[in-house]
Amino acid sequence: MLLKEVGEFGLIERIRQATPKGRGVRIGIGDDAAWVECRNRSFLITSDLLIEGVHFSLKWTSFYGLGYKTLAVNLSDLAAMGGSPAYLILSLGIPVDFKTEDVEEFYRGIRTLASRSSVALVGGDTSASKRFLISASLVGHSPYKPITRSGGKVGDDLYVTGTLGDSALGLKLLKEKGGRANKERGYLISRHHFPTARLMAGTILAQKNLARAMIDLSDGLLQDLSHLCKASRVGAVIWQEALPLSRAYRTFAGKKALLYALTGGEDYELLFCLRPRDRSRLERIKKRLGVPITRIGKCLPAHEGIKVINPKGEPLSISVTGYDHFRKSH
Amino acid sequence: MLLKEVGEFGLIERIRQATPKGRGVRIGIGDDAAWVECRNRSFLITSDLLIEGVHFSLKWTSFYGLGYKTLAVNLSDLAAMGGSPAYLILSLGIPVDFKTEDVEEFYRGIRTLASRSSVALVGGDTSASKRFLISASLVGHSPYKPITRSGGKVGDDLYVTGTLGDSALGLKLLKEKGGRANKERGYLISRHHFPTARLMAGTILAQKNLARAMIDLSDGLLQDLSHLCKASRVGAVIWQEALPLSRAYRTFAGKKALLYALTGGEDYELLFCLRPRDRSRLERIKKRLGVPITRIGKCLPAHEGIKVINPKGEPLSISVTGYDHFRKSH
Repeated sequence: MLLKEVGEFGLIERIRQATPKGRGVRIGIGDDAAWVECRNRSFLITSDLLIEGVHFSLKWTSFYGLGYKTLAVNLSDLAAMGGSPAYLILSLGIPVDFKTEDVEEFYRGIRTLASRSSVALVGGDTSASKRFLISASLVGHSPYKPITRSGGKVGDDLYVTGTLGDSALGLKLLKEKGGRANKERGYLISRHHFPTARLMAGTILAQKNLARAMIDLSDGLLQDLSHLCKASRVGAVIWQEALPLSRAYRTFAGKKALLYALTGGEDYELLFCLRPRDRSRLERIKKRLGVPITRIGKCLPAHEGIKVINPKGEPLSISVTGYDHFRKSH
Repeated sequence: MLLKEVGEFGLIERIRQATPKGRGVRIGIGDDAAWVECRNRSFLITSDLLIEGVHFSLKWTSFYGLGYKTLAVNLSDLAAMGGSPAYLILSLGIPVDFKTEDVEEFYRGIRTLASRSSVALVGGDTSASKRFLISASLVGHSPYKPITRSGGKVGDDLYVTGTLGDSALGLKLLKEKGGRANKERGYLISRHHFPTARLMAGTILAQKNLARAMIDLSDGLLQDLSHLCKASRVGAVIWQEALPLSRAYRTFAGKKALLYALTGGEDYELLFCLRPRDRSRLERIKKRLGVPITRIGKCLPAHEGIKVINPKGEPLSISVTGYDHFRKSH
């Protein structure tokens, strides 16, 4: 069925009926504003804007996957602060020739992950638009003191969760035609479409006061590391041989073995700073984080900048610059 | 200076530096999420999506005015719940050929109204985009029980704040070429560009438990009345001769004397239901609302629908349907 037939208010009514009210929601979708409970005396809020042709292509993304990922990337921002997600506000600009079923598939992707992560969809806005565009704001509780990007100190260890570069490599495989389907290829593509926000890891690192500074990896390791370093006023060294790479990544990365791991975006892993004296405390709780962690480098004085070194101690010549929306550069 | 020269992170840094931190803000712009204080044990949140070519045209809107109005329309949603605004999250999709100064003018418009209404800009997202697009989420405190759309009862009086149709008529004048500048024309255009959210009225009507149901007029009186009636499961009659019209409106509306007042959007006045026995209580506090109020009709049983009648009691034949983004109809 076409959106034109259902109409804007028909669509909103369908979404409202399919949306469970959720914990802490006093007034949900359908009034001038949502009214929700605040568990502590403060809360976290984060926002992401996703535009067709800029952040995603419907050529290789399903509506379901896009909904899932929209929430996942916002969950990841909260994970990086050590927060617990609670309420989602979702605004959509939708091309009028979309089918109602497509939009409902998108919401089904949202609901699947929302239900797993205890998130309630509480409101938003809809409009016609030339290209599909998604603006999501996610509110989270802050049970512990949030972890900023700015608490890193010279001498701190640098850790990441999970493996790096899978998502960017998965996207490359999606764009290439004619690749044969196999398990490892499927793994990388699934890491691109269905990233896992490291909520458990973020919460425990905040609760145990272990991460001094933290950021999630959305723009690529080097770019996000540079944000953390700038905010913390430190430099950093990354040890090439320490970078955690999946078996699938090693199979497919080829000659550009490190490029995706260092500069590829959308991993949605966490990067954090740890006082070296806390290593044994981290060791004791690491099994509870829900994801492996790897020490990949350490913080240096700011004037040393950011460098990646090989096992001989030689710096790799790789640009630290990531994607800039207004410069269109890597 | 072009955005390409400043870059995405350069732009964000400029905005961050120009933004005062604001009350209740523990962590503002520049981290993975904002961290803000919650005054009560609950809060309100509302969201609006504005797209160039759909909701506004840069042909007759300045960047400053657009920033101002972006916040104003969100303030109006909170006013309609009886809330007090606190935190703004703003995501922008910006054409890469925009000047940095244009974007800064937009933020200046935001800041002007934010400062007057005690709102702190705490975060958001930016991206390149073909057309300028604005997604704003506004969080507000709820000092009193929020007023929904659903509390209206048969027999309730219907009131509106201010005057109706000025904004839609102002937009019509903007689109027509060659009109002579004069005070009344200027008034209507200013009502279109710089609407006033009725925050004081909303708060007092909630505090005094006077409004049983309330909505702000963004889509036109009849459309928004139909939302309120649907949520409250009532019908309504509007008395044509009671509609509050400004002198400027009466001068310019011509033959379509009632069209803009009944169906014109973007007035951002409040429409609310009152128990008839509360009329004298309303009378006593009305001078404190900051805006005149007018009784324009009353709630009927649902099966009577929504009608506008002339002084002879005859119904006007005017369509209740307002703008539907997916149907493009009035």
